[in-house]
Amino acid sequence: MKLSAGVFDTLAEIVGANGVRRAPGELAAYSRDATPLFRAMPDAVVFPRTTGEVAEVLKLATAHRIPVVPRGAGSNLCAGTVPLAGGIVLALTRMTRILEVSGAELLARVQPGVTTARLADAAAVEGLLYAPDPGSRVTSTVGGNVATCAGGLRGLKYGVTRNYVLGLEAVLPTGEVIRTGGRLWKDVAGYDLTRLLTGSEGTLAVLTELTVALLPQPAEVGTGVAYFASLADACRAVAAIISAGIVPATLEFLDQKCISAVDDYAKLDLRRDAGALLLFGDDGPIEVVAGNLVRLRKICADAGALEVTLAENIARSDALLAARRCSLPALSRLGSLTILEDVTVPRPRLAEMVERIDEIALRFGLLIATFGHAGDGNLHPTCVLDPEDTDAVERAHKAFAEIFSTALRFDGTITGEHGVGAAKLPYLAERLGADQIRLLRRIKTAFDPAGILNPGKVGS
Amino acid sequence: MKLSAGVFDTLAEIVGANGVRRAPGELAAYSRDATPLFRAMPDAVVFPRTTGEVAEVLKLATAHRIPVVPRGAGSNLCAGTVPLAGGIVLALTRMTRILEVSGAELLARVQPGVTTARLADAAAVEGLLYAPDPGSRVTSTVGGNVATCAGGLRGLKYGVTRNYVLGLEAVLPTGEVIRTGGRLWKDVAGYDLTRLLTGSEGTLAVLTELTVALLPQPAEVGTGVAYFASLADACRAVAAIISAGIVPATLEFLDQKCISAVDDYAKLDLRRDAGALLLFGDDGPIEVVAGNLVRLRKICADAGALEVTLAENIARSDALLAARRCSLPALSRLGSLTILEDVTVPRPRLAEMVERIDEIALRFGLLIATFGHAGDGNLHPTCVLDPEDTDAVERAHKAFAEIFSTALRFDGTITGEHGVGAAKLPYLAERLGADQIRLLRRIKTAFDPAGILNPGKVGS
Repeated sequence: MKLSAGVFDTLAEIVGANGVRRAPGELAAYSRDATPLFRAMPDAVVFPRTTGEVAEVLKLATAHRIPVVPRGAGSNLCAGTVPLAGGIVLALTRMTRILEVSGAELLARVQPGVTTARLADAAAVEGLLYAPDPGSRVTSTVGGNVATCAGGLRGLKYGVTRNYVLGLEAVLPTGEVIRTGGRLWKDVAGYDLTRLLTGSEGTLAVLTELTVALLPQPAEVGTGVAYFASLADACRAVAAIISAGIVPATLEFLDQKCISAVDDYAKLDLRRDAGALLLFGDDGPIEVVAGNLVRLRKICADAGALEVTLAENIARSDALLAARRCSLPALSRLGSLTILEDVTVPRPRLAEMVERIDEIALRFGLLIATFGHAGDGNLHPTCVLDPEDTDAVERAHKAFAEIFSTALRFDGTITGEHGVGAAKLPYLAERLGADQIRLLRRIKTAFDPAGILNPGKVGS
Repeated sequence: MKLSAGVFDTLAEIVGANGVRRAPGELAAYSRDATPLFRAMPDAVVFPRTTGEVAEVLKLATAHRIPVVPRGAGSNLCAGTVPLAGGIVLALTRMTRILEVSGAELLARVQPGVTTARLADAAAVEGLLYAPDPGSRVTSTVGGNVATCAGGLRGLKYGVTRNYVLGLEAVLPTGEVIRTGGRLWKDVAGYDLTRLLTGSEGTLAVLTELTVALLPQPAEVGTGVAYFASLADACRAVAAIISAGIVPATLEFLDQKCISAVDDYAKLDLRRDAGALLLFGDDGPIEVVAGNLVRLRKICADAGALEVTLAENIARSDALLAARRCSLPALSRLGSLTILEDVTVPRPRLAEMVERIDEIALRFGLLIATFGHAGDGNLHPTCVLDPEDTDAVERAHKAFAEIFSTALRFDGTITGEHGVGAAKLPYLAERLGADQIRLLRRIKTAFDPAGILNPGKVGS
């Protein structure tokens, strides 16, 4: 759509001339996020600094039926912040204040543009832990994390972002400012809008302030690595760990293709002849971590590991975690187009799921490497290819469609932590059924009668 | 309203003649729940056995605009299941199957009428823990727990019911059966209806199957008790515990009036000269529990406790926890009408809040004793009085209205774990604001266009 000169004038009145961008060069950066192949130009990028400014922009947008796409760092991988219908990208990256970190109440209150890592660092200074740790934590924002219910490497033990959101200030598309939840762990006054907004991907309201729960910082963190001949062996170790009553903080795996890519990239002396690498770790009181690591090592060995090593120090521990975190950039170097996916299956189906992925990749003649969170069954099959090879791109889409269907047949889901966005919307009905899709649309309308917020995404 | 003979015939066709009750004597038991002073007769009580039967009943009800109140054990304390507008009470107490307990997946799947204690026992047999433990656990149902987002004694460390709900099967008032979430810890496909339905108090859909997360059973549980001259001293100890980086499983308190009542009732040799009793406890690996109990004892002593004792064995530990759990029956013996309330305030405001409650009780000439969850600021001020004394009943309502307002001024809430029901609905707008109330109503309509589900409660 084309915005009128009058609309641009009003936007400038609301956020200041400096807060509105419309030059094509500046707009281009906001035409995409971290998702490949999705791109659409906005008509304006608007940078509000206050809740009041957000409310004014939304009122204007509803009055003129202008699409608005709220956006943090744009690090999402499901095209959740691509402005498909044009209109305004509402960039919350100037709302970057940490308003409060309270050790007495074990919480922090932040504006949406604060990065996850900055919040975690501010908490750590007070001896506190912000538990959610998505892979993108250095660049991603807390507002974006909450909008997508971001996961991360500690999901099994600590849960995901939703478990840490205590309260929200949010602006409805019609301009009303609501406050949901608050500073309390226990609060059942009204429907749980805090959780409904968490993971709603900017389609229901714009989050302008977030109160999140913190935990005491664990005294000790320890990590180990086990190599297995096959991923099936690694998964047997994971099952044995859970059966032993251990819920470790970290249980991550890389398949053989990821091991090689990561080792080429990060030079960590990983064992390339292994079929799978299992990274395990725990945190907590020193004696518990030490005991659990020894038990984890033994369980891996008993499950037939080729080799198990405990990280001798924090530096090595950090290096191993960094290895897992760098899977995406490492794989990206293998081709100029990287499609990272995000299916989840029940833990006992993990090995079988990866086998199916490998079979599908072979059949479609594609390179698909898989890494992910073995503890919670969350897999990131990653296809690396040449974007100029349109036939390969076409085959990749078909391969992923099969991967999604397979995950659903295994009682799994099409997205564990990245979100629906534009990329998964075509598969959502298969996951939820037509009745639930219709219900989501009615809920969307309850929040956004004019349908201005992030059109073409979940709820559309 | 009056149900027609045709409606009764159809109900009998759906659930069988044995599944429909209409005799006044049988209806009377469903005219109330555990909340005093609220009562309304239904026209029928219907006992479905399957999801299909629930769907047929709801379709019929929507077609004829018949109010339907879903109900588990009816142990709620906010008049959430009182059939204010008559119609059908849909009693889910015949849907009592535990469908699955999986150690490999750390989850259970149950029908809504399973009691919380039965689920917990079935999990314990497999070495697993169902963490939510509302005070009513022996009688309350899992369906009711999820519908109210029940809390309990372990909220600070373990969170509340919402943190353990993985997936739901639910029937919409219009008869469609939806499945939200599933068997996964990480699943962001669509709006978080699992959490929206959790705590929706039977106003949005009827829950017919619940998948909940389990944890490995902790190896050790330990408990201790500390007496303080005043509740302010006890709260200072609580603050010091959190500051020390300890988040214990249990941090419960009784005020002086509760100590006496509980001791009269349960004969536990509690120290009646104390102004407050703090019950603390932890669970986990043996060495951690032992270490934490010693630290908790020292922190209480340093905060000026009159006396601190660690329970020497499981039996004493259970007895102490039972003392806390029996606060309500113990207080109930002091008068024939007991009004138990459920405000929550941020932890640092706890002592001040109890002081205000005591001041309000004195001013209105009422006996109000307070106990609750010190760890998460959740207070249960309990007024004991004579229901024939209409003036006292009137004063109690005024006193509680002041207590709610005070909690809100302290950044607290009007209900931490019991729910809104009919009892708190008059105060909900003060908590949420008019804009949010209107939004709740629109969400209600998105689920229940005819407004048949639990009318007169949240969303109405």
